[in-house]
Amino acid sequence: MKQVTRQAVVLLSGGLDSATVLAIARSEGFAPSALSFRYGQRHAIELAAAERVAKSQGVSRHVMVDINLSATGGFGGSALTSDLAVPKHASADDIGSDIPITYVPARNTIFLSFALAFAETIGTGDIFIGVNALDYSGYPDCRPEYIAAWQAMANLATKAAVQGRQSVTVHTPLIQLTKAQIIRRGLDLGVDYSLTSSCYDPDPSGAACGRCDSCLLRLKGFAECGVKDPIAYA
Amino acid sequence: MKQVTRQAVVLLSGGLDSATVLAIARSEGFAPSALSFRYGQRHAIELAAAERVAKSQGVSRHVMVDINLSATGGFGGSALTSDLAVPKHASADDIGSDIPITYVPARNTIFLSFALAFAETIGTGDIFIGVNALDYSGYPDCRPEYIAAWQAMANLATKAAVQGRQSVTVHTPLIQLTKAQIIRRGLDLGVDYSLTSSCYDPDPSGAACGRCDSCLLRLKGFAECGVKDPIAYA
Repeated sequence: MKQVTRQAVVLLSGGLDSATVLAIARSEGFAPSALSFRYGQRHAIELAAAERVAKSQGVSRHVMVDINLSATGGFGGSALTSDLAVPKHASADDIGSDIPITYVPARNTIFLSFALAFAETIGTGDIFIGVNALDYSGYPDCRPEYIAAWQAMANLATKAAVQGRQSVTVHTPLIQLTKAQIIRRGLDLGVDYSLTSSCYDPDPSGAACGRCDSCLLRLKGFAECGVKDPIAYA
Repeated sequence: MKQVTRQAVVLLSGGLDSATVLAIARSEGFAPSALSFRYGQRHAIELAAAERVAKSQGVSRHVMVDINLSATGGFGGSALTSDLAVPKHASADDIGSDIPITYVPARNTIFLSFALAFAETIGTGDIFIGVNALDYSGYPDCRPEYIAAWQAMANLATKAAVQGRQSVTVHTPLIQLTKAQIIRRGLDLGVDYSLTSSCYDPDPSGAACGRCDSCLLRLKGFAECGVKDPIAYA
């Protein structure tokens, strides 16, 4: 582990990927602040997971951004924020290669924008996000070319960057890893995956459905590692 | 006036600039939806103005985004969202050329991100924002190079753009206009400036202070047009 301590902002959803990113940021010598969002998700379960993960990894500052839309119509348009059914499959091999219905318009763009504000406020340009271009290739805002364009924009956006005090770097340590590689990396770093929640459609007790895209990819990853997933499945 | 009717998203603050932008979008044949933000401003007065302006210009859909930060610390760092004093001057000539204390970290980046989500949801790529690189040259996220980089990013961010159904265009009709030119343009288009609010520090009745940067630039613009500003000053 390097001995420098720099501030960083880590986007933390409570899922497996961002829990791993948080551990990677720490292993690289960053003192991470965490940022999570409440934006009309149908389940608060993943936010509770984000709080557990932040606490377990000693995060001193965890900001929760509440986003509410009001007036003549909301945004809608995604199974994660509305009443559309979350698609279920028998195995990970059945997941299509189209952009999934769980796509949320401009989600990472919104999340990264808040991370940029948070980063500038605490005096850093380092932002970590757990995007993955392999297992989630369907999401346009998880691709390397998107991240590069976002970073270029950010370096023109803030007072700190424009004044040359601080350039913005988006760290995407998972972007080219398979789910199994992510899990292996996290286990090496001591991540407690029993605290995480990945399911798009958990039951009221918090148990994962085991059949949505996110569950299937997670289960496949653990299976490839030869490790049992420690969370409860319905 | 062109006869095509296309959807557009207009960022509407309730100030003079965005009221003018809304009128320009309509004059170009767009059917605008409006988007406003409640993000810890010290005064709700400008949001009431945004509602009046949207109604007066026949906007059918006006979405208000409420953003609240909770947990271990907020973002802070701007006179517009915290208890820092708003700077006052005797005249517009006394306004410095540094980035003002009223700068809000990543504000336009956050606003445009929500506009992108809204635009994709209603099936358009046209976004209007009233940034101005002349009178507000201090804000990094009001410059043409920033807007160009943001647009490039947005065209890699959404499902609609990536699938080639809809490219994203950020319209900045005020970017090279002086305040007087903006007012003249708005008066020509029938904008009722008595409905707008620009002051950073209005009194409880809503009357403008007349001495903050925003008031001074507004008053100077009206004076250069030879027109009386119709709002109340304290």
